[in-house]
Amino acid sequence: MQVELARKYGFCFGVKRAISIAEKCGDAQTFGPLIHNQKEIDRLSRDFSVSTVESFDHLDTNKPIIIRTHGIQKSDLQNLQNKDANIIDATCPFVTKPQMICEEMSKEGYRVVIFGDKEHPEVKGVMSYSHNKPIVILSIEELSELKLGQKIALVSQTTRKIENFLEIASYLISKFSEVRVFNTICNATFENQEAAHELSKKSDIMIIVGGKNSSNTKQLLRICKNNCAQSYLIEDENEIESSWFEGKKRCGVSAGASTPKWIIDKVVAKISDY
Amino acid sequence: MQVELARKYGFCFGVKRAISIAEKCGDAQTFGPLIHNQKEIDRLSRDFSVSTVESFDHLDTNKPIIIRTHGIQKSDLQNLQNKDANIIDATCPFVTKPQMICEEMSKEGYRVVIFGDKEHPEVKGVMSYSHNKPIVILSIEELSELKLGQKIALVSQTTRKIENFLEIASYLISKFSEVRVFNTICNATFENQEAAHELSKKSDIMIIVGGKNSSNTKQLLRICKNNCAQSYLIEDENEIESSWFEGKKRCGVSAGASTPKWIIDKVVAKISDY
Repeated sequence: MQVELARKYGFCFGVKRAISIAEKCGDAQTFGPLIHNQKEIDRLSRDFSVSTVESFDHLDTNKPIIIRTHGIQKSDLQNLQNKDANIIDATCPFVTKPQMICEEMSKEGYRVVIFGDKEHPEVKGVMSYSHNKPIVILSIEELSELKLGQKIALVSQTTRKIENFLEIASYLISKFSEVRVFNTICNATFENQEAAHELSKKSDIMIIVGGKNSSNTKQLLRICKNNCAQSYLIEDENEIESSWFEGKKRCGVSAGASTPKWIIDKVVAKISDY
Repeated sequence: MQVELARKYGFCFGVKRAISIAEKCGDAQTFGPLIHNQKEIDRLSRDFSVSTVESFDHLDTNKPIIIRTHGIQKSDLQNLQNKDANIIDATCPFVTKPQMICEEMSKEGYRVVIFGDKEHPEVKGVMSYSHNKPIVILSIEELSELKLGQKIALVSQTTRKIENFLEIASYLISKFSEVRVFNTICNATFENQEAAHELSKKSDIMIIVGGKNSSNTKQLLRICKNNCAQSYLIEDENEIESSWFEGKKRCGVSAGASTPKWIIDKVVAKISDY
């Protein structure tokens, strides 16, 4: 099997930074999973004693508490601060940015529209910084709540597609006299998507390596499926089925922004053997 | 000949307001043509002694000076103020708005992008309010001067098409982290355009009445030509040629935002006679 890696794939700046912070800190807890990849979280726990804590009740305030890459809600952060915890912030700066925009714009009287999934931890964090009720949407239809005459500020979940963001921006601009548009989409996600799109056009089969609950990994899968029907999302090499590769020549490989290089290497090695 | 007027046509709010101001004032001068329609300017001169002055040298500072609907440049306004002239502002409030936005945004450090024709008096006026050099464009290609990292504020000439404005907004949003979009397109223009578009689809011939140097009248002509090849722009009933109507049944009529009702009435009367 001829295997080709996408021109850009895997870890983004924010994830590399968070892992580096966790490794340097050691013997600590992360509040919620540090990144969206269980294998890497297991490695940090095993090799650096960095464990994941899901609720306040289980926190050990004698150990440093690392804030995950996707950020947490403002009230949770304030609770941690009230406990005098040793807080180490590994929130990706590209996530801190929409949080700050949301806070600032709502203070200035703008109604904040967040393009994103309201169940995603990143979006929950961003929402929590608004001083008025933010509107979180995935489609134009959900914008009916907005009242004419409002000043609108628009931000995006970092992992969304720019085309969809522009559709929403255009709709708002055509209806409202002032729309302050903050393009908070992360370039890394976009570059991985572009590269996966290109590669999937010339591949017989595409393997996307990443966490199954990772928004950007699922989006890579969707993009690849448009060009290559035989596209699969796997968390590691153990999920690979040899039958997928029957009669195929060219296998493309991409990986989500939270997927460590060591897992991708194992996947490539296994596929190359077919 | 069956004649149908567009659902919306002719004078907009700003033009009605400016004419009413000029009529009430009387015995005055306008600095530049009050509106883009010579016939109406002639009527104001004849019936209300409101003359048009094109340069400072010809101003009579003993008479009130009316600022035209399209606005003037900030330096010209300051010159008039320095002369202690009795200034009566008939600038359309929808034009004052982008002027104020341009001033405010450039003060706050935004680079102002104006979607419009840099030779149009309205745009020249808006440009003059910027504290830094504004970028005036009609197409995305002209945006190459912008530097990454700049905060961008986007406004539009009031008579532009929303579709083109949205294209430029989308381009800027995809390239810059913050774009403050002010939709300064006037609804009146848009409603006249929509109505002309609808009417031109069911007409054998379209007559657009308006000033030949009026941007919004020329745009009406372009829109109608897309649906009805036999579309003509005339300034008054004297330009009508009977040969245009040979073999035609349904004539649609629309008029630019600066076209007075009394001219349109004469046009409709003449066509109805065929």
